[in-house]
Amino acid sequence: MTGYGVIDKNGNYLRHVVHGEIKPRKDSLLSEVLADIFRRLGAVIAEAHPQAVALENIFYGKNVRSLIRQAQVRGVVIYACADRGLPVYEYSPLEIKKAVVGYGRAEKRQVQTMVKAILKLEAIPPADAADALAAAICQANFQKEQTV
Amino acid sequence: MTGYGVIDKNGNYLRHVVHGEIKPRKDSLLSEVLADIFRRLGAVIAEAHPQAVALENIFYGKNVRSLIRQAQVRGVVIYACADRGLPVYEYSPLEIKKAVVGYGRAEKRQVQTMVKAILKLEAIPPADAADALAAAICQANFQKEQTV
Repeated sequence: MTGYGVIDKNGNYLRHVVHGEIKPRKDSLLSEVLADIFRRLGAVIAEAHPQAVALENIFYGKNVRSLIRQAQVRGVVIYACADRGLPVYEYSPLEIKKAVVGYGRAEKRQVQTMVKAILKLEAIPPADAADALAAAICQANFQKEQTV
Repeated sequence: MTGYGVIDKNGNYLRHVVHGEIKPRKDSLLSEVLADIFRRLGAVIAEAHPQAVALENIFYGKNVRSLIRQAQVRGVVIYACADRGLPVYEYSPLEIKKAVVGYGRAEKRQVQTMVKAILKLEAIPPADAADALAAAICQANFQKEQTV
C-alpha cells in the first residue's frame, strides 16, 4: 500500500488538496505493481502540480522481505518525481510525528487525528494517506536540505 | 554499480551483443542516480531490442543500507522494463552460477571466466557486467515462469 497526500501552503495556512492510497491488485506481478504506482502517482502529480515531494524514510525494523518490497516501490516513487523535475526530501518517522503531533513516539491513530485537525478534514484519513499528509505538513513547516 | 549484458540466442548458439556497467557519479543524489539508470538502461533497451530481461534476485546477506539501496535501483530497473513491455524473470545467484559454471558455489572470477568462454569474448568482462551476462545465459537456457 502506497499512501499519498497533497497540501497547499499559503503563508502559514495549510490547505488540503487530495490524498489517497494505491493498493496493488491481488496476484499482480511486481512489474505490474511498479508500473501501476508510477502511472497513478504521475496522474496525481499532473493534476496537483506539487513543487516538492516529502517521503518518510524506510523503517528499518521490518522484516527483510517487506523492506526489499518497500525499497523497490520507493525507488520507483523517487524516479517518478525525478522524471518530472520534482525535488524529493526525506524525513524520519520521528521527525514527521514531531512535526504533526509534537512528539516522536506518537501512535498511528494520533497522527491521523492531528492530520485531520491541522487540515480541517471532515473524516480521519486512512493510515498510509495520513502518513503521507503528515510528511507533507512536515515538509511545509520544516523544509530541510535535499538529500534524496 | 549496475551491470547489464545483452545476448542473442539463435537455436543453441548464444552470441554476445553488448555489456556494461552503470556507475553513479560521486555525490549524486539518489534521485539523480535512479534517473540516470532509467535513462541509460532505456538506451540499451532501445538499441538492443531484447525480448526478455533476467535479473539476479537480491542477495539477503548484505547490510540493510546497501540492501535498501540495491532494492531501490532494482525497483527502477523493473519499472524500466515493464514500461517497455518487457517480461522480467528472476534467478537466484545459485541458479545463475549453476547455469554458467555448473555448480552454485562458484567464485566471482569463475563466473567471469566462464562467461568469457561461453560468449567467446576477447577479454574478461568486469564483475557486475559478467553477472548480468550470466543471468542472460541462465535465462536463455532455463527460462522459467515469470514471477516479477
